[in-house]
Amino acid sequence: MASDHIVTSYDEELTELKSKVSEMGGLAEAQLENALEAMQRRDTEIASRTIEADFRVDNLEQEIDQFVVQLLALRQPMASDLREIIVALKISSDLERIADYATNVAKRTMTLAHSPQVRPAHAIPRMARLALTMINDVLDSYADRDTQKAIAVWHRDEELDEMYTSLFRELLTYMMEDARSISSCTHLLFIAKNIERVGDHATNIAEYVYYLVEGKPLLQSRPKGGENEYERLDLPKSQA
Amino acid sequence: MASDHIVTSYDEELTELKSKVSEMGGLAEAQLENALEAMQRRDTEIASRTIEADFRVDNLEQEIDQFVVQLLALRQPMASDLREIIVALKISSDLERIADYATNVAKRTMTLAHSPQVRPAHAIPRMARLALTMINDVLDSYADRDTQKAIAVWHRDEELDEMYTSLFRELLTYMMEDARSISSCTHLLFIAKNIERVGDHATNIAEYVYYLVEGKPLLQSRPKGGENEYERLDLPKSQA
Repeated sequence: MASDHIVTSYDEELTELKSKVSEMGGLAEAQLENALEAMQRRDTEIASRTIEADFRVDNLEQEIDQFVVQLLALRQPMASDLREIIVALKISSDLERIADYATNVAKRTMTLAHSPQVRPAHAIPRMARLALTMINDVLDSYADRDTQKAIAVWHRDEELDEMYTSLFRELLTYMMEDARSISSCTHLLFIAKNIERVGDHATNIAEYVYYLVEGKPLLQSRPKGGENEYERLDLPKSQA
Repeated sequence: MASDHIVTSYDEELTELKSKVSEMGGLAEAQLENALEAMQRRDTEIASRTIEADFRVDNLEQEIDQFVVQLLALRQPMASDLREIIVALKISSDLERIADYATNVAKRTMTLAHSPQVRPAHAIPRMARLALTMINDVLDSYADRDTQKAIAVWHRDEELDEMYTSLFRELLTYMMEDARSISSCTHLLFIAKNIERVGDHATNIAEYVYYLVEGKPLLQSRPKGGENEYERLDLPKSQA
């Protein structure tokens, strides 16, 4: 009986861990969604609420970290339980970074809201929607242990990287055409970079989900888009 | 006898884990040093060697991850040994990010080497030296279990953030003054941001060292510099 009781309670702890990670995922996703909505609407109210709420994600990460250490110490897990615990630790660290990028977008939105609007406002929302879909899908893949969905997220990162590279060039052109847009465009560049990084963290999570379910790493070589960002962008001839 | 043997071998494994983390730290530090030297000398040879060597850091991270899972499964560690293992996992993930930033600096250097030189080449090396000192010190603090040194690194991050903020404004001014510098300045902005992020990761490592030695988190509130980056930089009146 006693032993039975302990086993059940251990299972409950693993379920609690999984649900804490999902909760943190939902929170990180909501933070990014709010930051991006604030940016599109130039709404400093939403931006400032997003910045203030970041501590909730940090707190959840700390809770998960402590819970993991406690589980490792008291339960001395093996095999798939151990993977469950290690993966929770890894995913929570990626989610914390995603929420950090959301905060950064919200902070830059506070600035941008008081500056003249720059043209490429449509390309960033497109990147944002893709990044949000990736987070949503990768969290589903974690909850459902769905490796096919995880692999699909992993592949979509290339698309996001390509959108970023093209936006990077577009923004540089705007800056060259109008010096008054430089400050705003620079913030937009960093916002786009933040969204591109969110995609990288969603890809990391996809790899952890695969490892969690299959017990081995996802061995395909990672799609590496966005390299063109490093090409030199020459000044348009009219301004050379 | 048998039990004695197992105990010794477990200690050896923990020592090996610690030395793997230090080795990875040395490698990440060397990668950053090379990337920054390449940037200063506009040396595409060093930059390209740095980019190629990044896989060695990634491989070490994977080795550490696997070693950690193996130690947790086979040794079922408690208390301070468990902290040692968890902290190794956390630090290696920060070191991997630091090496990634070094690769990013090297890639941008490949581009910058073919562009006209931009003025603020002195401010970035200053930031770079500080970031390298922080990494070097925090790795020493890990090797020597020296919390005082770790706390000192933690405090220096504020200085790095302030240097970044001031450089950010300087670079924006250059871009406004000369549209031909926009592409190069943008790469320099991202390089500076990468160095600033390296400081954040050194700060994370400092926190892990403190937790490792003291068994409790460093509870001071983290210095938050660099916020001025988000202020609006107005166009100089002469160009408005």
